[in-house]
Amino acid sequence: MFDKILIANRGEIAVRIIRACREMGIKTVAVFSEPDREALHAQLADEAVCIGSAKAADSYNNMNNIISAAVLTKAQAIHPGFGFLSENSTFAAMCKECNIKFIGPDPEVIDLLGNKANARTMMQNAQVPVIPGSDGVVKDIDRAYEIAEKLGYPVMVKASAGGGGKGIRIVRRKEDLAKAFESAKSETKAAFGDDALYMEKVIEHARHIEVQILGDDYGNVIHLGERDCSLQRKNQKVLEEAPSPAVPQSVREELCAAAVRAAKAAGYQSAGTIEFLYDRSKQFYFMEMNTRVQVEHPVTEMITGVDIIKEQIRIADGKRLSIAQKDVTISGHAIECRINAENPDKNFAPCPGTIEYLLLPAGGLGLRVDTAVYEGYEIPPYYDSMIAKVIVHGRDRKEAIAKMKRALYEFIIKGIDTNIAFQEKILNHEEYIAGDFDTTFLEEKVIDRKD
Amino acid sequence: MFDKILIANRGEIAVRIIRACREMGIKTVAVFSEPDREALHAQLADEAVCIGSAKAADSYNNMNNIISAAVLTKAQAIHPGFGFLSENSTFAAMCKECNIKFIGPDPEVIDLLGNKANARTMMQNAQVPVIPGSDGVVKDIDRAYEIAEKLGYPVMVKASAGGGGKGIRIVRRKEDLAKAFESAKSETKAAFGDDALYMEKVIEHARHIEVQILGDDYGNVIHLGERDCSLQRKNQKVLEEAPSPAVPQSVREELCAAAVRAAKAAGYQSAGTIEFLYDRSKQFYFMEMNTRVQVEHPVTEMITGVDIIKEQIRIADGKRLSIAQKDVTISGHAIECRINAENPDKNFAPCPGTIEYLLLPAGGLGLRVDTAVYEGYEIPPYYDSMIAKVIVHGRDRKEAIAKMKRALYEFIIKGIDTNIAFQEKILNHEEYIAGDFDTTFLEEKVIDRKD
Repeated sequence: MFDKILIANRGEIAVRIIRACREMGIKTVAVFSEPDREALHAQLADEAVCIGSAKAADSYNNMNNIISAAVLTKAQAIHPGFGFLSENSTFAAMCKECNIKFIGPDPEVIDLLGNKANARTMMQNAQVPVIPGSDGVVKDIDRAYEIAEKLGYPVMVKASAGGGGKGIRIVRRKEDLAKAFESAKSETKAAFGDDALYMEKVIEHARHIEVQILGDDYGNVIHLGERDCSLQRKNQKVLEEAPSPAVPQSVREELCAAAVRAAKAAGYQSAGTIEFLYDRSKQFYFMEMNTRVQVEHPVTEMITGVDIIKEQIRIADGKRLSIAQKDVTISGHAIECRINAENPDKNFAPCPGTIEYLLLPAGGLGLRVDTAVYEGYEIPPYYDSMIAKVIVHGRDRKEAIAKMKRALYEFIIKGIDTNIAFQEKILNHEEYIAGDFDTTFLEEKVIDRKD
Repeated sequence: MFDKILIANRGEIAVRIIRACREMGIKTVAVFSEPDREALHAQLADEAVCIGSAKAADSYNNMNNIISAAVLTKAQAIHPGFGFLSENSTFAAMCKECNIKFIGPDPEVIDLLGNKANARTMMQNAQVPVIPGSDGVVKDIDRAYEIAEKLGYPVMVKASAGGGGKGIRIVRRKEDLAKAFESAKSETKAAFGDDALYMEKVIEHARHIEVQILGDDYGNVIHLGERDCSLQRKNQKVLEEAPSPAVPQSVREELCAAAVRAAKAAGYQSAGTIEFLYDRSKQFYFMEMNTRVQVEHPVTEMITGVDIIKEQIRIADGKRLSIAQKDVTISGHAIECRINAENPDKNFAPCPGTIEYLLLPAGGLGLRVDTAVYEGYEIPPYYDSMIAKVIVHGRDRKEAIAKMKRALYEFIIKGIDTNIAFQEKILNHEEYIAGDFDTTFLEEKVIDRKD
């Protein structure tokens, strides 16, 4: 097993990985940017190396500095966490060249799944349902009209090279198609230097359902059930749960089997997530595969008892999966609330600052708080606003909701604004309690519109 | 279901019960002594009532004041926690008379099991193995010689009315029996006004193994497996775990079946624990039954997923057990370390004082800290020195030990002395790691003798 791992991340996920390493008897190297000198991850690790200034490009995304830190500290592997360099195939390839194990899939696999059009074709070949759409690139507006007619409006025009929401248009009526097609074309040309477009049907009132996958170097792939991540604001997940209250057992089995086929088709190893849209007619459609651990991985850990981070590390070390599919059991219900330093009353504006007082919820059965903040800590303004994840596990969804409400009631934090009251508003919403929501729920039914 | 419950206790167990009530939608009343005005249990409950001065006899053991607080606040039930009035049948009877539900067994059952000689006879009738000994009271020294000869030395002479270690003598040689018998007789006469003695064989190199029981008003009794509580100092448990590393599955089944027979024989309802001695020849012997929740209940919760406090409340409300024996599954391994404000280097002298800095271990899968302390809290000198329970759950015992070591490494507390380093010494001891220990282990192999 590795003696020493460098964690190329910050915040709660860096702390989470350091803790897993310590439990496995592996030494850790933290890297930190200048404003993160006092951050918990830098304090908890066995060694800590400053890798640059505040801007992510200069530190947490600075590949050369991170590789240098690993070489200097003789770390044998790098865990990238999520965000930053976690899905960067260039970084994964650099690690390989330097004989440092990248804890994640191979760079070729990251690339393969990062290209949306390729991934779509691969999934079709693996009998994984994809969103109905064009077969590859749509050459011109005439062909676009034909395809839209076949799919039925609304349709989506998307950049093949896409990312970050650029080059995407939703078209609800035939008369809007030509204009949308042209503007998407010029936007994608400007953004990616490539004006290729493809088209998909818009799946309305869909839920975001994703399946956690683990694969090893020996072709073994298992799933750990699904998560429901439909509660989003501007494509950012806010509250996640597992299992999904909307997926019947028969569909769950199909969905998870499709996810395993998808991962096998990609020759996937490490932890990954297959994201699906799930509509009211109980059809699911492949969206994309995330080739890294996700923020919401704890809800899966709570219902399965499988430590996903430890499993990633073992797999990277060439071990076989420590659990077989038949031994994976789903028990109870788990919910995660992301606690952000932000002000929901001011359009969720980030609210960095110093934590003057902190009492984290704790105690009792089935409560977990993953965080890197502490009393007196100054949240820097440079990074993501998420400061904690509150995760609960109950025997059923009702108990999990009650437990989360208890936990948030006890969560006391002073000196900054947070979204705790907003999370409580969700938990008290009768449609949420009934499990009746889709990805538009937060924007349409929970967020107050002041404008 | 009850609208409101009064918690007749303090510290982490009071907080634990308040949290369970909040998750169940039940309002809570805390009671507190004068020095406990700022205690967390008094702050977290919906209402809090001062019931007297520091001395337990004036407050937490003051039955009239507690009953008055319940009547005044219209609490429908009282949860006694552990210690204080939790096994006081007079208090349970007073509650009954006042139409307040005592969350525990009936006063008659508490009495029945509180009398050791009666309990022993009842267990024999229920085919539960008891420690070989005299049939009831030993009249005189001649009879004592006969019985000792039959049992084989060493033997124990014990007060029938006993408690608190009073009136107990261990006799290793025939020539010491007469003197021990007389001194036990006068001690028990002085302590309890009753000089009846009985005798038992001494079970050497025994482990303390106990079985968690739940029973409802309808005659249903289930067990939640066993706990190993062999690590004790002066009869106080220090570190507990579940399952026991020493009990093979075949013995486990017999042991748990015997515990269920014992509880059924007593007509037991609520949560209770049957304590056994377990010797090297894999024989187990009934010691006593505790008619309350125990400090170490969380290790059982972690391996079964059953919330014992919530189950107690449901049972007291007349509900049936929410789980059947066939649905109880034991998963993984759990360990609890009791963190005490004490100085192991000064013969474990209690060390009350103000907590100047506190960082509790947190995060990751399978870690729980039950505590009622916080930064700035002043630990009063009047009560038990236990300030926190760190509980971990791993897929196996090895992972649980690693997780506990990680947790204790992260536990930072300043301003008072604690036994954290002592707990780490246990966790690093090779005989502990091998699971090879009995109730003499701590005193003989871990505690440094300075004298």
